Amino acid sequence: MVPADTPVLRADDLAAVRGDGVFETIHLRSGSLWQLDAHLDRMERSAARLEIALPPRAALEELASQAVAEWPTELEGALRLACSRGPESGGSPTVWATLNTINEKQLRGRREGVTVRTLSLGYPVDARSGLPALLAGAKTLSYAVNMACQRWAAAEGADDVLWVSGDGYALEAPTSTLVWLTDGVLRTVPPEQTGILAGTTSAYLLAHAGELGWTAEERLVRPADLHTADGVWLTSSARGPAEVRALDGVPLGPSPETPRIAKLLGFPA
Amino acid sequence: MVPADTPVLRADDLAAVRGDGVFETIHLRSGSLWQLDAHLDRMERSAARLEIALPPRAALEELASQAVAEWPTELEGALRLACSRGPESGGSPTVWATLNTINEKQLRGRREGVTVRTLSLGYPVDARSGLPALLAGAKTLSYAVNMACQRWAAAEGADDVLWVSGDGYALEAPTSTLVWLTDGVLRTVPPEQTGILAGTTSAYLLAHAGELGWTAEERLVRPADLHTADGVWLTSSARGPAEVRALDGVPLGPSPETPRIAKLLGFPA
Repeated sequence: MVPADTPVLRADDLAAVRGDGVFETIHLRSGSLWQLDAHLDRMERSAARLEIALPPRAALEELASQAVAEWPTELEGALRLACSRGPESGGSPTVWATLNTINEKQLRGRREGVTVRTLSLGYPVDARSGLPALLAGAKTLSYAVNMACQRWAAAEGADDVLWVSGDGYALEAPTSTLVWLTDGVLRTVPPEQTGILAGTTSAYLLAHAGELGWTAEERLVRPADLHTADGVWLTSSARGPAEVRALDGVPLGPSPETPRIAKLLGFPA
Repeated sequence: MVPADTPVLRADDLAAVRGDGVFETIHLRSGSLWQLDAHLDRMERSAARLEIALPPRAALEELASQAVAEWPTELEGALRLACSRGPESGGSPTVWATLNTINEKQLRGRREGVTVRTLSLGYPVDARSGLPALLAGAKTLSYAVNMACQRWAAAEGADDVLWVSGDGYALEAPTSTLVWLTDGVLRTVPPEQTGILAGTTSAYLLAHAGELGWTAEERLVRPADLHTADGVWLTSSARGPAEVRALDGVPLGPSPETPRIAKLLGFPA
């Protein structure tokens, strides 16, 4: 991998001038890329939706492998694989990798949980289904609003945002997925119906819920109903499971299930 | 300006990995940058909304001036000024310029007009006002959905898209502003109420409408009402005024006012 301060992108690369590309962030732990296949699967789905010709799987695996080759095994990290449509003037897609440590804010969220504010996106919960031009479900490089919403949360004194629909259903967070537990059922928001990004960490949790004695289900939920859940988490690859400890100023938890959730995902409790 | 194929952006620049920046496209004609001040004003407003420390005005003017210095005077062009938050690991904002010719599709749109399809964004017309975290009115580098909607239009056999609100009001196009003329009143959609980008070309037209014997007004409109207008245009800096010649398959115009609109904006009729 080239040093971080070496320019690799052209001034007219569509990543830089249009956010016109896709990416994945993959957790590096003990020298292995956690759920690499699931991330590459999703990257292929995102690229298909944007009509970008992603390089062959083997080339992405090779890029990922090279990027992490010299990273210390004992240090966890976050590998970003990105692919843009390429230069504006034409040519092949641009593919590149960056590798970072997990920052202190992420580690604190995983360890201590997060305080969350809800923010309405205005549109009805099912407004984006069946409209591929709006890129629902694709993980694109166009994250300016995601970043702005996280800055808004910080200005409001919270750690993160939970987006809700105009008709009052919880959707997702700017860089993580909502998961909650009620009466032995582990749940997340249905991606197909809502247009949210299908989370890799949440999918892993729901697929393995049986190991904790739970069943799993996708369903809609209103924020008010989260207050009576047995645990609420925002899950993502790098931060892992961050328990929601306050929602719009109302305390939640701590859930006794958080250590089991973390362990199921392979994080130290 | 560095050659277009020389990398200038780091792999972790927030322009490239988050679309986290702002830009302007400015028309270069007869060696001058048309409405440079209005574009720099808007760039400052966009950067303020994203909380990016844009370089001083004089530095941007100098960058623009250097970028166009060697361009042939007789050739029109489109200068893009962009500014991202900078590298993800911290540091100063990244500012850069690119300069392109006006492509054939843009010239054809200006000359012959465009066919347009409407597409709903799902949210009510005033859902974005008062929510700065959604970056309404800011011209950001996160244009993946804008580009996808234009690809969608092409797949539907149209030249461009007119976004409408979930409650049926016309908003804007992915890279241009809606302007229409009815009974001697030149109109555009109110940016403050709707969260659309305030167009520089549309603002110029409305400010100079009196020179054509018209008054000017911002107001909401439903697409159906555009069918009875005396002229409908999508306006932008590089393409200029493109007359809407069909909306959702229904022919419009040609408007006898299109040559006067073009002339008012300094384009050859």
